[in-house]
Amino acid sequence: MSVPESRAERLAAAVAEAGLESVIVGDLVRPGDSGRDQMADIAWLTGFGGSSGLAVIGPEVRGFVTDFRYTAMAAETVPDSFEVVDATADMLAAVAGLLSGRVGIVAAKTSLETHRKLGEKLGEGVELVAGEDLLTDLRRVKDEAEIEAIAAASALTDEVYAWIEERGLAGRTERDVALAAEQRMRELGAEDPAFPSIVATGANGALPHATPGDRVIEAGEYVTIDMGAILDGYCSDCTRTLVEGEPDPAHRQVYDLVLAAQTAALDAIRAGARGRAVDAVAREVITEGGHGERFGHGLGHGVGVEVHEPPRLSMRSDDTLLAGDVVTVEPGIYLPGEFGVRIEDLVVVTDDGYRNLSSRPK
Amino acid sequence: MSVPESRAERLAAAVAEAGLESVIVGDLVRPGDSGRDQMADIAWLTGFGGSSGLAVIGPEVRGFVTDFRYTAMAAETVPDSFEVVDATADMLAAVAGLLSGRVGIVAAKTSLETHRKLGEKLGEGVELVAGEDLLTDLRRVKDEAEIEAIAAASALTDEVYAWIEERGLAGRTERDVALAAEQRMRELGAEDPAFPSIVATGANGALPHATPGDRVIEAGEYVTIDMGAILDGYCSDCTRTLVEGEPDPAHRQVYDLVLAAQTAALDAIRAGARGRAVDAVAREVITEGGHGERFGHGLGHGVGVEVHEPPRLSMRSDDTLLAGDVVTVEPGIYLPGEFGVRIEDLVVVTDDGYRNLSSRPK
Repeated sequence: MSVPESRAERLAAAVAEAGLESVIVGDLVRPGDSGRDQMADIAWLTGFGGSSGLAVIGPEVRGFVTDFRYTAMAAETVPDSFEVVDATADMLAAVAGLLSGRVGIVAAKTSLETHRKLGEKLGEGVELVAGEDLLTDLRRVKDEAEIEAIAAASALTDEVYAWIEERGLAGRTERDVALAAEQRMRELGAEDPAFPSIVATGANGALPHATPGDRVIEAGEYVTIDMGAILDGYCSDCTRTLVEGEPDPAHRQVYDLVLAAQTAALDAIRAGARGRAVDAVAREVITEGGHGERFGHGLGHGVGVEVHEPPRLSMRSDDTLLAGDVVTVEPGIYLPGEFGVRIEDLVVVTDDGYRNLSSRPK
Repeated sequence: MSVPESRAERLAAAVAEAGLESVIVGDLVRPGDSGRDQMADIAWLTGFGGSSGLAVIGPEVRGFVTDFRYTAMAAETVPDSFEVVDATADMLAAVAGLLSGRVGIVAAKTSLETHRKLGEKLGEGVELVAGEDLLTDLRRVKDEAEIEAIAAASALTDEVYAWIEERGLAGRTERDVALAAEQRMRELGAEDPAFPSIVATGANGALPHATPGDRVIEAGEYVTIDMGAILDGYCSDCTRTLVEGEPDPAHRQVYDLVLAAQTAALDAIRAGARGRAVDAVAREVITEGGHGERFGHGLGHGVGVEVHEPPRLSMRSDDTLLAGDVVTVEPGIYLPGEFGVRIEDLVVVTDDGYRNLSSRPK
C-alpha cells in the first residue's frame, strides 16, 4: 500500500512538540525479524510491508533502515522524502548514524537488550529518552482512504458469512467451518485472517475465545462465528451467532437480550461519547435482563492496521470517542456448560452517530 | 500437546547453577497478548498453547500465570507440578507474588516498560537480573518425541509437494500455487504454515524472500517453492526448485551446482562438525562453480517449536553441531533478473551423520 507523506509530517510535528530531535519508529525488540503486529507502526507510517524496518523521524530527518532482502521493496513503497538505508551488516548502527540530540524510543516496544546495544553505538551528544508512543494518537482517527480500506475488508468478511450460510452449518464440525471460511477469505483476496477465526457451537459458545474443534454443529443450536480479514493492510472484525432451524426458546430470549444491548449501545455511539458510558449502556440492558455477571469482557475496541487498537469501550476505559474512530460493538452473554451469544458490528464514529460497516442480518 | 516434567526440572537446575532463585519464562514485552513466536518458550516448557502465559521456575517454585480465558486450558495442559494462578486483574502482580531473591529475566524478551512496571511490584529482597536466555540451550537438542513431531510435520509438507506436482504448475500464478498449498496443508491437519510460503518463478526466483504474486509459471521455467507446516506445535521447512518441461541448459547447470553443494554439505554433517565449516563446504562448491557471490545467505538454521532457532550454519556461526540438533541445509544461487535455485532439506544430526526428514526427490 502507499501512504501519504502527511503521516510523517504530523509525527515530526509531535516530535518537535515533545522537545525531541527525532523518534525511532518500529520494533526495537526483534529488529530485523518482526511479526506483523510489531510492524504495524511502520506499515502505517511508510506503507512498507516487510518484516525488517526501522524509521527515524523528526523535523530534520526522515530515515528508513532495512536489510538487503527489502531494499527494493522499500524503494518502491516508502514515501519519497525518506532516505532509505541498506543496513544488512548492522541495523542498529545504521539507525544510530541517523540520530542526534534527544531521541524518543517507545518503552513498550524496546527490549532491555536492544536498549543496551543501541546505547553502545550512539554518537556524541545523543541521548535515548524512553517514553510513550507518539504514533498512538496519530494512528487512532482514520482518514477517508483508511475507512474505505476497512470497509472493503469488512465487505469481504460479510461475503464469507453469506457463503457460509449458503453452504450450511448443521452436520459440519467447527474446525471444518473455520477452515473453509479462512480459505474462502483468501480466495476473495484477503492477505490473511485478521486473527484465528472462532467457530463455537453449543456449550463451546460459552467460551469467548474457543478454539474450533471436532464438535459437530447441530440444527437448532446457536453457533458463534467471530472472524475478520486483512485486506490492503487493514483489518475487519465481525461476529454473528447463527442458528439453523428452531432454537430453544430460552436461548432465543438470551439472543434477543444481546441484540437489544447492542442496539442500545449503537444508539449511544457518537463523537464525544465516553467509551465507558457506551459500555455501560449495553451492560445495563444485559444486567436488567438478569445476565450482568455473564458479560465478562469489554464492549469493543478500535480496529485499523491492527485488529486491537485504541480506543477501548469498556468499564475501565478513559477514552472519549472521536469522529473517524473505527470501533467494534460486541456485547455477549456466556452461560457456562450451556451456550453463548455474541453479536459484533464494526462502525465508524461520526459527529452525530455512526456508519455501520457490518451489513449481515442479525 | 503435553510435555515431560523433566523440562522444568532441567531448567530449575540451570537456574540454580546460575546463582538465581528463579527465572521468569515468557513474553515480558506484551504479556497477556503474545504472538506464537513470543510464546515458544512457554509452549516448549509447559505445552500450553494460548496467547497469555508466564512461568516462574526455580528449584523451589513452579508457577504458571494466565488469565480467565485460559485457566481451563492451563489446568489441562501444564504439568502437574505447576501451581496455576489466575491473574485476570494484573499478570505482573501475580508473577511478582511468586518471586524471591535474585530472579533472572531475559534481556531480549523484556521491554523497558514491563521491566519498570514489574520492578514497582517486587516484594522485599527481590532483585531482577537481566541476562541471557537459559532455555536456549535446553530447547536446542530435540528428544525422540520432538524429532518425531518434526518428522511428521515434514512428511505432511512432502505430501503437499507431491500434491502440487500432481496438480501441475505451468499456467498457474505464484499466488494460486501458494494459496492452494497452504489450504492443502491445513486440510491435512496442519495448524498453520510455519511461515508465509514462497512460490517464486523466473526472475522472481532470484529474490530469496519473494512474495507470491500474479506472475504465471511457464513450462521450462524453474520455480522455487519454500514452505513448512506447523503440526502438533512443531515446524517443518523444505525448499524445492521445480520445473515442468525442459529447462534452459545453462539454468540446469546452476541447478546441478546447487545440488552438488547441498550433497557435499550433507556429507559434512555430524555431531562435532562446526556450523561454520559445514557452511564453508557448500560455499566452496558454489564458489568453484563461479557463483560464490550469488549465495547471499547462510546455509541453514535450527528448527523446532520455532522455524528459526539455534544452531546456525553460516559464515558467522560459532555453533558446533550436537546429536539431536534438527537443522536445515539450504544452499542457493540467485542471478538477479534471471532466475534462482534453492534446495533445502531438514535433517536430524546424529553421531555419525544425519537422518534426512525431507523425502521429496531433487
